[in-house]
Amino acid sequence: MFKKILIANRGEIALRIIRTCREMGIKTVAVYSVADRESLHVKFADEAVCIGPAVSRQSYLNILNIISAAEITGADAIHPGYGFLSENAEFSQICQDYGIKFIGASADQINAMGDKATAKKTMREAGVPVIPGSEGLLNSIEEGVELAKQIKYPVILKATAGGGGRGMRIVNKESEFEKAWNDARNEAGAAFGNDGLYLEKFIEEPRHIEIQIVGDQYGNVSHLSERDCSIQRRHQKLVEETPSPIVSPELREKMGAAAIKGAKAIAYEGAGTVEFLVDKYGEFYFMEMNTRIQVEHPITEEVTDFDLIKEQIKVAAGEKVSGKNYFPKLFAMECRINAEDPGANFRPNPGKITNLHFPGGHGVRIDSHVYGGYTIPPNYDSMIAKVIVSGQSREEVITRMKRALQEFVIEGIKTTIPFHIRLMDDPSFNSGQFTTKFLEGFDFEGL
Amino acid sequence: MFKKILIANRGEIALRIIRTCREMGIKTVAVYSVADRESLHVKFADEAVCIGPAVSRQSYLNILNIISAAEITGADAIHPGYGFLSENAEFSQICQDYGIKFIGASADQINAMGDKATAKKTMREAGVPVIPGSEGLLNSIEEGVELAKQIKYPVILKATAGGGGRGMRIVNKESEFEKAWNDARNEAGAAFGNDGLYLEKFIEEPRHIEIQIVGDQYGNVSHLSERDCSIQRRHQKLVEETPSPIVSPELREKMGAAAIKGAKAIAYEGAGTVEFLVDKYGEFYFMEMNTRIQVEHPITEEVTDFDLIKEQIKVAAGEKVSGKNYFPKLFAMECRINAEDPGANFRPNPGKITNLHFPGGHGVRIDSHVYGGYTIPPNYDSMIAKVIVSGQSREEVITRMKRALQEFVIEGIKTTIPFHIRLMDDPSFNSGQFTTKFLEGFDFEGL
Repeated sequence: MFKKILIANRGEIALRIIRTCREMGIKTVAVYSVADRESLHVKFADEAVCIGPAVSRQSYLNILNIISAAEITGADAIHPGYGFLSENAEFSQICQDYGIKFIGASADQINAMGDKATAKKTMREAGVPVIPGSEGLLNSIEEGVELAKQIKYPVILKATAGGGGRGMRIVNKESEFEKAWNDARNEAGAAFGNDGLYLEKFIEEPRHIEIQIVGDQYGNVSHLSERDCSIQRRHQKLVEETPSPIVSPELREKMGAAAIKGAKAIAYEGAGTVEFLVDKYGEFYFMEMNTRIQVEHPITEEVTDFDLIKEQIKVAAGEKVSGKNYFPKLFAMECRINAEDPGANFRPNPGKITNLHFPGGHGVRIDSHVYGGYTIPPNYDSMIAKVIVSGQSREEVITRMKRALQEFVIEGIKTTIPFHIRLMDDPSFNSGQFTTKFLEGFDFEGL
Repeated sequence: MFKKILIANRGEIALRIIRTCREMGIKTVAVYSVADRESLHVKFADEAVCIGPAVSRQSYLNILNIISAAEITGADAIHPGYGFLSENAEFSQICQDYGIKFIGASADQINAMGDKATAKKTMREAGVPVIPGSEGLLNSIEEGVELAKQIKYPVILKATAGGGGRGMRIVNKESEFEKAWNDARNEAGAAFGNDGLYLEKFIEEPRHIEIQIVGDQYGNVSHLSERDCSIQRRHQKLVEETPSPIVSPELREKMGAAAIKGAKAIAYEGAGTVEFLVDKYGEFYFMEMNTRIQVEHPITEEVTDFDLIKEQIKVAAGEKVSGKNYFPKLFAMECRINAEDPGANFRPNPGKITNLHFPGGHGVRIDSHVYGGYTIPPNYDSMIAKVIVSGQSREEVITRMKRALQEFVIEGIKTTIPFHIRLMDDPSFNSGQFTTKFLEGFDFEGL
C-alpha cells in the first residue's frame, strides 16, 4: 500500500480524499494555490506545498510544479480528484515516467475515451449501444433518407459547424425530410458559412443515466449500478439520485452489463463512469466515459456502503475487485450547493461566509471544504458543499433533503439552496417523470 | 397522524425529534427554559414556549407548564425525549387525561419497569433470565451456602445498605463462604450500622448489551438487535457500538427473543430497550428496561436504516409494527462528546463555544444542538454532540471514528474528544475484548 499520496486538487474533493487516506493510515500532501492558503484541505493534510498563483493554469494545472511537489515530499502516488488534471493523459504518463502511481486511468485509457468519435467507435465495436447516425457528413439527401429509414424516425439533422440549436432539425417522418434538410442547410450556411449536415437518431425524452464501474489490473470489472443526473442546467448537473426512478431491475442489469463490456474493451483500471442517454422507450445509448471519480460519487457510496476513494486507492495499489455487481440497498440524492445566485441566472457569488451552520442527523452527509469565516476565492468552481441524503424510499429522501436544506445557515453569500428547496416541492420532480430538459421550463423567479 | 407535536425536552434530542417531525410534515412546538433561549431546538421548531427558569424542576420537569404549553399551542401529542419526564408515569397519565398522546410508554408500563424488584419479578415470570440470587435478605449463613450451591459459584454477597464497594465480597467456592460472610457482615455493620446481606450470582467479565425493541398496540413486537454499551465511566455510557464484538448470531437470536418475551409480558407499546449483562460464558441476565428512546439509538438507525423517532411516532398514532426482527447490515459506533475535561476527572466545562467545525464525509453523522458562538448553560447535561460513524467492518468504523474525531474544531471549552481519540488507539478496545470495568484501568493522564 502507498505510504504517502499527493492530492492534485482543491476544495471538497481534496478533503474527501484526505479523509479516506487518514482512515487507511496513508499520509497526505496537499498542494494549493496562493488563493487557497486558508483552505481546509491545506489544514487537514499532513504536508502542504504551494504550487503557484491563483490562476489554475499556473497552479492546479501546472504539471511541473505538482510533480516537483511529489518529488520533494516523497509521495509515492498522486490522486487527481475530478476536473483539473484528472483526465489529462500527459499528466498520467508523466507520473508513470517518474515512478509515481497515478490514481486514475492510464494515458492510453484516457486517450481512448477522451476523443468522442474514437470512444463511440470503440464502444460500438464492443457491442455497447451508441446513438445510431451517419459516419460523418451526409453526401446527399438520398443518403440521409436511406439512413433515417434504417435507424427509424424520429431523427435529427445537425449542422457540423452548428451550435446553440441553429442548423438543427428534428424529422419525425420521411415526408418531412426534404423540407427539414433544406431548412437546416440554409440556416447552417447562413449562420456558419458551412452547410454540411450529419444525422443522428433523435432521443425522445432523454434521461442522463450513468453507471459506476470499478476495474482492476487483472481484467475484473464490477458495476455499482446507476446514478440519474437528469436535473441539469446548461449541461451542469445540479441534483443526482440513485436508484433512478425510471430504471427497472432489468434495465439496470442491461446497462450495467453494457458498461462492463465497454470498460473491458479498453482494459479499464480504477473507478470510472459510463454515461448513457435513456429514451422514453427505455433504450439506452452511450454518451461518454469519464475516467475519474465523479462529483456525484457519494450517492453510490450511500446505497452500496463502498468508499469509492478507498476502492480507487486499493486497485491502484494492485488489489483485486470482486467482479460482482452491487445494487442499491437504499435511496440517495445529492444537491450541489453552489455560491451562485439562483435568482440572477446562477451568477457566481464568491465572498466571505460570515456565518455557517450545516445540517445533521439521520441520513444526512455533508462533503464540504468551507467553514465559518472562510472566503470563497473567485478563481475556481463555485461549489461549496454537497449535501447527500439517504433513506428507505425516494419520498423519504426528498422530505429529508428538504429538511436538511432548510437547516443550512450560510450568511455572507448567496447560494443555490433556495433553488433546491423549490425543486424538492416541485410535483414533476416528485413524480420522478422528467427529462434532461426539465430545468428549461423551471420557474427561477424570486429565488 | 398527529398535526402538531410538543417536544418536552431540550438539546440534541429535541432537535432530533424536530428533524423527524419536519420530514413527516408534522408541526413542532419547542419548550424551553430561560437558559435555553438561544438553543437550536427553539430556533428550528415551528413554535416555542418558555416554560420557566433555568432550573429543571421549574421548567423541563414542570408538568403543569408543559401541559399548558401543549394546550395553548394545540399540540395533539407530546414527545418526551430521554431523561426529564420521559419515564414519569404521572406525566404519561396526565397527558392521557388531557387527551394529548404521550409518545412513550403508558403509566402502567412505566410503573411495571420503573421499580427494579417488580421489573425483575415480571421478567423472571415471563421466562427472561434475570441474575439469580436471594429473595431479599439471607437469614443465615446456611441459607446462603445452600443458595450458592444452587446458583453455582462465583457468587457475590452484598450489604443491603451498601454502596461504593463496601460490604461486598465475591465468593469463588464454598470453602471461602464463611470467611466472606463474616467479613462482609462486619464491614457492613461498621460502615452502615446494618449488617443485612443478600446474595447474587457474580457476573464474570460483564458486558452491557441492550436490545432495541419496538412494540405496537396490537401486541406485535420487533427487535432491532443489540447495542454494546460496555464502555462506561461510573455507569455513564461514553461509547456504544453495534453489532457487539462478543454477540454471535445465536446469542443475538436468544437475547432478541428474550427481550420480545419481556416486552410482550407488559404489552409494551413504542420504542424500548431491554438491558442485559452478558458474562464471559455468553450467559445473559436482565438488568432493566428503559421505556423511552435512548441516547445511543442512532447506531441502531445506521445499521438497520430505520428512523426510530419516526417509528415511535407511527406506533403512537396507531400504526402496526411488522413483528419481524432486524439485524445489523453494517457496523456503527457512537462517541458522546461532552463539555467535560477528561484530564481533570471529567469535570463539566460549560461556557461559550468560540469556534466550531464538525467533521463530515462518508459514514459520519452528527447529532448536535450547538453552533459557533453558542454558550453551553451549566444547568443541564454536558453532552454537546454525538458523532455516529458507520462502515463495513468494526475496524473501518474505528479508523473512521478516529478520523472524524480529529476533524472536530471546538474552541472555548474542553471536551471529551481527546479521551475518545486515545480510546480509538487502545489495543484492548480494538480487540473487542473488554468489560464494563474497562475504563477503571484506563490512563486518563495528560488528556
